[in-house]
Amino acid sequence: MLYLEERIRKDGQVRAGNILKVDSFLNHQMDPEVYREMGKEFYRLFGGEGVTKILTIEASGIGIACVAAQFFGCPAIFAKKSRTKNIDGQVLTSQVESYTHGGSYTVMVAKRFLGPGDRVLILDDFLARGSALRGLIQIVEQSGASLAGCGVAIEKGFQEGGAQLRRQGIRVESLAIVEEMGEDGITFRR
Amino acid sequence: MLYLEERIRKDGQVRAGNILKVDSFLNHQMDPEVYREMGKEFYRLFGGEGVTKILTIEASGIGIACVAAQFFGCPAIFAKKSRTKNIDGQVLTSQVESYTHGGSYTVMVAKRFLGPGDRVLILDDFLARGSALRGLIQIVEQSGASLAGCGVAIEKGFQEGGAQLRRQGIRVESLAIVEEMGEDGITFRR
Repeated sequence: MLYLEERIRKDGQVRAGNILKVDSFLNHQMDPEVYREMGKEFYRLFGGEGVTKILTIEASGIGIACVAAQFFGCPAIFAKKSRTKNIDGQVLTSQVESYTHGGSYTVMVAKRFLGPGDRVLILDDFLARGSALRGLIQIVEQSGASLAGCGVAIEKGFQEGGAQLRRQGIRVESLAIVEEMGEDGITFRR
Repeated sequence: MLYLEERIRKDGQVRAGNILKVDSFLNHQMDPEVYREMGKEFYRLFGGEGVTKILTIEASGIGIACVAAQFFGCPAIFAKKSRTKNIDGQVLTSQVESYTHGGSYTVMVAKRFLGPGDRVLILDDFLARGSALRGLIQIVEQSGASLAGCGVAIEKGFQEGGAQLRRQGIRVESLAIVEEMGEDGITFRR
């Protein structure tokens, strides 16, 4: 999606340790036009899939999911993060590794919001090693719902998460895939 | 806002300990129509205030802020929660007490996103004792921005937060104010 690539080039900052800072428009300050264009594009890509629920994870995915839900006309659900492993039985849970903070955490969704009749689109802001998406996919599997696919704003194409998920036959659509980044700038996958 | 009151009556659940569960449409599963109607109503209330930034706090405020930002055409910022008190100087911070989880946490906003030229609308899902809103107001004050007011989806009118803020001269607009709730149902303030 050229619009997002141009915005990343203009306002993104590359930092040491393969960090791409996009907090001026994506995951701290959130630009309404960027959010609307992303929602529209996810709807163009997955609008024919009969999606009944959008699933994301707190915190940065929530705004993306809510604005996209305006186009799909279906509810969005955010999986809650918790360090507690001891959780009420009426929830679907999975474990997600955190590379940024170390360790792992439990993500959970109340069972009554996802079931066999649902067709789920998973949305998130970033895809790198894919741990968060795998956790959300496990929750969809546990619920008996079917998975329409995963939509991601920015994929780090030089990390393995996206390739692994696609090899498993999961449809992953990333609005911008960073192939390389460094002092000389950012190269996107064509 | 009659629309939200009706939805709370229909889908909200009153639990022991003054808990109002609205997770089927507001703060776990998020209904796109509820979010759109709230965004529209916040814009009706504050659209003439020259708002340049919407400020909220993770996690449940993010969707509300992002959809409202579509009406205002201005960016939304979410303050990040952290248990770390030792934070980089380029951030505005305040302390927020957590009654649900106990203790307190630091909320932070990058300094470069809020400044004296800004007019800020604070949005959140719930107002009870007002600790989160007070934390966000402190951040606005530190930044030198002016505060247009606070917009809240549901206020627990039987707790003191809203009254305290209004006594300080802060404009607080709650889309639904619960006056009383119990086994017999919910009474809203007229």
